Amino acid sequence: MKKLIGKLGVISVLLIAMSMTVCAKQKVYKLKMATTWGKTATPLIDTSLQVAHLAKVMSNGQLQIRVDSANKHKAPLGVLDMVKAGQYDLGHSASYYWKGKDINTLPFTSMPFGMTAPEQYAWFYHGGGLELMQKAYKKHKVLSFPGGNTGVQMGGWFKDEIKSVDDLKGLKMRIPGFAGEIMAKAGALVTNIPPGELYTAFERNTIDALEWVGPSMDINMGFHKVAKYYYTGWHEPASELQFIVNQRVFNKLPKRLQEVLVLAFRLAAYDMYIQNYDMNAKAWQKMKKEHPEIKIKSFPDDVKKLLKDANKKLRDNMASKSKLLKEIFNSQEEYMKKVREWSIISDYQYIKDNL
Amino acid sequence: MKKLIGKLGVISVLLIAMSMTVCAKQKVYKLKMATTWGKTATPLIDTSLQVAHLAKVMSNGQLQIRVDSANKHKAPLGVLDMVKAGQYDLGHSASYYWKGKDINTLPFTSMPFGMTAPEQYAWFYHGGGLELMQKAYKKHKVLSFPGGNTGVQMGGWFKDEIKSVDDLKGLKMRIPGFAGEIMAKAGALVTNIPPGELYTAFERNTIDALEWVGPSMDINMGFHKVAKYYYTGWHEPASELQFIVNQRVFNKLPKRLQEVLVLAFRLAAYDMYIQNYDMNAKAWQKMKKEHPEIKIKSFPDDVKKLLKDANKKLRDNMASKSKLLKEIFNSQEEYMKKVREWSIISDYQYIKDNL
Repeated sequence: MKKLIGKLGVISVLLIAMSMTVCAKQKVYKLKMATTWGKTATPLIDTSLQVAHLAKVMSNGQLQIRVDSANKHKAPLGVLDMVKAGQYDLGHSASYYWKGKDINTLPFTSMPFGMTAPEQYAWFYHGGGLELMQKAYKKHKVLSFPGGNTGVQMGGWFKDEIKSVDDLKGLKMRIPGFAGEIMAKAGALVTNIPPGELYTAFERNTIDALEWVGPSMDINMGFHKVAKYYYTGWHEPASELQFIVNQRVFNKLPKRLQEVLVLAFRLAAYDMYIQNYDMNAKAWQKMKKEHPEIKIKSFPDDVKKLLKDANKKLRDNMASKSKLLKEIFNSQEEYMKKVREWSIISDYQYIKDNL
Repeated sequence: MKKLIGKLGVISVLLIAMSMTVCAKQKVYKLKMATTWGKTATPLIDTSLQVAHLAKVMSNGQLQIRVDSANKHKAPLGVLDMVKAGQYDLGHSASYYWKGKDINTLPFTSMPFGMTAPEQYAWFYHGGGLELMQKAYKKHKVLSFPGGNTGVQMGGWFKDEIKSVDDLKGLKMRIPGFAGEIMAKAGALVTNIPPGELYTAFERNTIDALEWVGPSMDINMGFHKVAKYYYTGWHEPASELQFIVNQRVFNKLPKRLQEVLVLAFRLAAYDMYIQNYDMNAKAWQKMKKEHPEIKIKSFPDDVKKLLKDANKKLRDNMASKSKLLKEIFNSQEEYMKKVREWSIISDYQYIKDNL
């Protein structure tokens, strides 16, 4: 009889253990994500939250991502450092913010006179771009993935029309980063002003021009109430954000959750591109309606040429200092040459035929 | 002692049952998908297979979709019927194939002189398009979702240049569907020829022109070896495929798997858009290299005007017969008016500035 109880016990334990092995797959993984964006920075922060939502749904709750906005961690431009250090598992930011630390991360957001959003997605996923991005991030022991696209960013708001290169000389403009370096080469006095003070500085003529993002984000800044000339884009034709993951954290996830995370990144990125396309369309309508005096302008040919030449010089100089950067630039240029022809034959010509 | 055994038994059974309740979530749902595409019709069939793959990964194997190509079910244009009848759970096809059965399903693939791919995705997801699509499919007890975009389809291959509307008169052209009706109104002799006989018919001058898809799919048909003029697109600026699901089958899925399925659709659709963008770019390069005599052409203004007028008349006539169709057309037109302005300011102007 004791034997029987013993056997029953053993069988029960075995059965329970077996069942629990299956159920052990339900272990929850909690990850923390630092984003560069403030908690009201639609649509950027939406995309950080969207990836957490998608990962949760796709993983059946196994993958839970807590999103900390910049309001919380106070280090909007420190996202790469925090993810490298393991302080955060994941980050949502833009690669070109770290060009000062590692120049090779620059080209994965957007390059002046570079690819448009569909062209660049095609490069990332079918033209070797994603592999080059991983190669660039490897030394940081971080993986990097496309994280949402703003589409073409506008050239900025100008109080006066730019009729020739002469009008750039001495122009006080807020335009940060690489584009700012180019503008400086073209003769502008490039300054940096914290976002919170931008509107007042612009209104009070401390600056003559500024660059922000595009209608969807510019509208809340109110620049359209101050300046009349809205210039079309040249310096960020398709700014792609990045999701980054600490490699060690990623390696520790079960293979299935690794896959889920990467799929969540991919979907959230596309979603943002489309969300922002819609937001830009609607914001532009609103601006135009409230301020019909706003004029959309493109830079005259001599300005475009000057900016292109300055861009080329700066790029060549950068590329001469890094073999990997040269490899990335070459890959982008070669791919763009091919894909742009298709863009011209397809969407460009179609829109032209229907103007 | 018997009591003890009994208790042990009860406890074991309870524990096992509890464990198994948790594990019961792992129940596998096997669904069958009929696609319109043949088994080698890249990138269309890739997208059918991609959705099965994504659903499997996202559901942790719970959602398994068997994809039957047209080679198997032999009814490429019967996908809606088969899904309605429950013969298949899911379908992957293009909504406009069923315009003969239900005219309200026409506008969800692409409309002549309609939206481009990013514009249309923005309409689907942020402009009320998806809701209208569900409304149109409701009477079929089927749900419908975007299923991948070809981008701009080319206007077709022509043996002779079209210099004016006179050159359309009597032109023997293979162009099916709504676009064919427009071409007929514009004076062409529109014929239909099965895909397998197209190349020979074109080579032997049975037809003077034909429309297929775009470089990515045209290249394997070999039309570029026969004709020199490749016309840019007007009739399908952003052909969106559709995933459809039998409503009853969908309702029976656990909520989580419903969510997973819809996410898999969304991601597979975007993926195809980008995959095909890349394929078009590469295929065009290859065609051009092998046949440098090919000329990309756009229709002259009088032809464009004729096609636009014919399109408008046909559309207005259709819309007068269906309140829902009118509602869908209006939604598309109103959204397009706004979003096109943004497309012109952004990608269009950017590409123009960099020609």
